[in-house]
Amino acid sequence: MTERNSVWLEQWVVMRVIGIDPGLRRMGWGVLEIESGTPCHVANGVCTSSTGPLATRLAELYGKLSAVFETHQPTEAAVEQTFVNADAVGTLKLGQARAIALLVPALAGLDVAEYAPNAVKKTVVGVGHADKSQVLHMVKMQLPSAKIAGADAADALAIALCHAHQNRMSAKLAKALARGAA
Amino acid sequence: MTERNSVWLEQWVVMRVIGIDPGLRRMGWGVLEIESGTPCHVANGVCTSSTGPLATRLAELYGKLSAVFETHQPTEAAVEQTFVNADAVGTLKLGQARAIALLVPALAGLDVAEYAPNAVKKTVVGVGHADKSQVLHMVKMQLPSAKIAGADAADALAIALCHAHQNRMSAKLAKALARGAA
Repeated sequence: MTERNSVWLEQWVVMRVIGIDPGLRRMGWGVLEIESGTPCHVANGVCTSSTGPLATRLAELYGKLSAVFETHQPTEAAVEQTFVNADAVGTLKLGQARAIALLVPALAGLDVAEYAPNAVKKTVVGVGHADKSQVLHMVKMQLPSAKIAGADAADALAIALCHAHQNRMSAKLAKALARGAA
Repeated sequence: MTERNSVWLEQWVVMRVIGIDPGLRRMGWGVLEIESGTPCHVANGVCTSSTGPLATRLAELYGKLSAVFETHQPTEAAVEQTFVNADAVGTLKLGQARAIALLVPALAGLDVAEYAPNAVKKTVVGVGHADKSQVLHMVKMQLPSAKIAGADAADALAIALCHAHQNRMSAKLAKALARGAA
């Protein structure tokens, strides 16, 4: 058992987290259940959109992601922050896909946590500049029973793992503060 | 009667057009009915979002714009194209709001026409570089019975007027081609 897994065992919060890796052509998603501090894989996949008009593609992604929420009923949601770069047209496209990734959980009544790509990689791989294959490898290591539907789904599972880790840290901090106040 | 209005009288298509001017803080909308070629004002307004988390704001805009569709039942939708500029963060925000403006009509089963800001201004004001006050003035001139809810709503009505004009041009072209083929 890794040190990270042993740390997760300390967490006694039951939650079902969905991680979403936004993209217009391929939107990765991954659902974990955190029970008694251990992350258990539930499901993962990729919502794809066709090559038609943008409005139709966004509606497709909305329908497919809503169906994932309907099936897996997550209680927490985490989405990767968009990396703003010099390619303004690419940034715009990603922003439009990302709106769907934020909207669907918000309409389901969930708060949506957002994590920078580097924070996700640092949590799952240990370094902030890991490539997609390293993320896939480490997600497979941490969720050995999962059959992972490619790199986008692995990224989504990594976001869910990152959220679970952040929650554990917050719970630990709250516990320490409560001890201090006592 | 302006020359533009007399041209619209040639159009014998009944449609109800919604124009949408996307924005995260303020999303303008305007509905026109085009009957016997004349654009008649139906309603206009602005969907606003609070200053909370982005996912919540997108869900607010989605709910408010969906209610506008429910109330006014448009049969055609037109949205302003996003102006991609050097401010990547601003472009991203606008892209996320724009996704809602595209998604709501697509979920209502409508095709969504997109127009560049300059094309809208050229149709309504006559020049591509008109400012907001000129657009507001010309929209008021063309829809004298409308009580316009500010510059964003006027922009949305201008987009609807542009769409009506484009439809008329397409109908005219189809008619000429049919005559040529006969």
